[in-house]
Amino acid sequence: MKCRKCGATAAINMRHHRLALCASHYLEWIPEQTQRTIEHYRMFSLSDQVLVAVSGGKDSLGLWDVLDRLGYQTAGVYIGLGIDGGVRYSDQSLARCRAFAGARRLKLHTVDVPTELGASIPEAARLTHRGQQKPCSVCGLTKRHVMNRVALEAGVDVLATGHNLDDEVAVLFGNTLSWSTGYLARQAPVLEARPGFVRKVKPFCRLMERETAAYAVLRGIDYIYDECPFAEGATNLTHKDLLNRLEADRPGAKLSFYLSFLRARQTGALLLPGAAEAESDLHACVTCGQPTTAPGECTYCRTRRRIHEKREQRSR
Amino acid sequence: MKCRKCGATAAINMRHHRLALCASHYLEWIPEQTQRTIEHYRMFSLSDQVLVAVSGGKDSLGLWDVLDRLGYQTAGVYIGLGIDGGVRYSDQSLARCRAFAGARRLKLHTVDVPTELGASIPEAARLTHRGQQKPCSVCGLTKRHVMNRVALEAGVDVLATGHNLDDEVAVLFGNTLSWSTGYLARQAPVLEARPGFVRKVKPFCRLMERETAAYAVLRGIDYIYDECPFAEGATNLTHKDLLNRLEADRPGAKLSFYLSFLRARQTGALLLPGAAEAESDLHACVTCGQPTTAPGECTYCRTRRRIHEKREQRSR
Repeated sequence: MKCRKCGATAAINMRHHRLALCASHYLEWIPEQTQRTIEHYRMFSLSDQVLVAVSGGKDSLGLWDVLDRLGYQTAGVYIGLGIDGGVRYSDQSLARCRAFAGARRLKLHTVDVPTELGASIPEAARLTHRGQQKPCSVCGLTKRHVMNRVALEAGVDVLATGHNLDDEVAVLFGNTLSWSTGYLARQAPVLEARPGFVRKVKPFCRLMERETAAYAVLRGIDYIYDECPFAEGATNLTHKDLLNRLEADRPGAKLSFYLSFLRARQTGALLLPGAAEAESDLHACVTCGQPTTAPGECTYCRTRRRIHEKREQRSR
Repeated sequence: MKCRKCGATAAINMRHHRLALCASHYLEWIPEQTQRTIEHYRMFSLSDQVLVAVSGGKDSLGLWDVLDRLGYQTAGVYIGLGIDGGVRYSDQSLARCRAFAGARRLKLHTVDVPTELGASIPEAARLTHRGQQKPCSVCGLTKRHVMNRVALEAGVDVLATGHNLDDEVAVLFGNTLSWSTGYLARQAPVLEARPGFVRKVKPFCRLMERETAAYAVLRGIDYIYDECPFAEGATNLTHKDLLNRLEADRPGAKLSFYLSFLRARQTGALLLPGAAEAESDLHACVTCGQPTTAPGECTYCRTRRRIHEKREQRSR
């Protein structure tokens, strides 16, 4: 297989684009594609302050690298979840993010969840009803809360996450299987700012996981290879597996599924009135002030309070 | 595994219902479930004339058998497609339908497509642009046209087809992957009558394919085992395969996907305005009088005319 641009040996073949590229052209192509996505969905401009949520993985570090190369004003935020999993997962992740930011002289905000929440994510899952089987639920709500808070405190214009096409499609697929119209209404490459919520964007939403991985490898980014130790067996991964079979059978199926969804919603051929209703129920959490639909206190603060109560009971 | 009702050896285990049944209780359960579906979606009553579209396969003959056992007034319609496929597919199918109807003294309408259309389905696909790769498209349009015509001529109240849950879910899945909102708006267990269109119902829409197959086998119905020779490699079958994996991983996933779709649409959480527009564009075909959105002549009549023109050109 030859690079379409220069005829050199191709480093990657993207069947759904019928495009094979050598390493150096691929390293140009990814920023071009990202820039197109940023412009297409009007995500942000060169004058905006962009906070990139980084986990130490290929997607988020790859995204930060691309945005930096494209000349955007970026800082990173790393959220330490206190996950060990036998591989010192969180420590290793933080080390990668620090090294990445240090080498590029970029600012990295760090938040330590065990300190903030009173428990690591695995402990929090055990101490609350929310994570009986898996800590993914409490982890998700904590990350959303903390990212939003850091972004507001730092006064940035936009928060960027490294979600790739496979992530987006797996979530879309899951929400479609259950026809969760509220979630379907909210899933988008851009979530506009609302009072108390920072604007959120996903500049990698049209890139497949293997493309972001190839980018990180070819750029020599030192990222953490391990999946989160709790991800195994997650429904999301089952869905990703199915979607990979679909893609293998019909290259482009994932991208088409995602883009035709966005298009149908945009043109009004698909209406999901659930979102507007949920929005009208938002009010400020009595403890932290972040918007919430839960009565009184937001779920993060309630979880945090419960953890502290349990700790106190035990120490008596 | 034991039958839940009598403790005898179970003939079938339905994981998504957590229900195992022996042969005789299963043969009671299927009509009960079908009756529930008929009532739930208000499909028809004992005073209605029901025309059952039969192909000679397990679903349609099983459905006709169940409706007959439940005391409904039924007749059948068989559409001979002129498919040989090395197994005399259409001849064998017709023989099964005739034997079934004869043994129960039920009326069977038969239509011979090669006579009506001027060509068998495989020939029609070759003679028109419509079926370059597969005759499925011309076959589908022909069956829809003929079934509707026979139902109107026979003056029945409702046309019942043997579509099972796997069929419905595969179609829903395909239309969801492409977010074909027009098709999504129209897919339903009941399609109400409209001027020129008979009411259409799918009483087996909540039964899985293996359940209808088990019913036909246990009832001793002589049905045609072969899939249509043209079905191989159809996108629908790829989707069915994926959905089978999903169901194996999470029993009930198919039923939940289908029912939550119907529910979301019914409650207005999912709005698909495409359907209403398409309906307003309907007018009577200038040749046959059936409603169509195509300008002038309906697609069936246009296909038929083209076939006759080609035949004439050749015979000159």
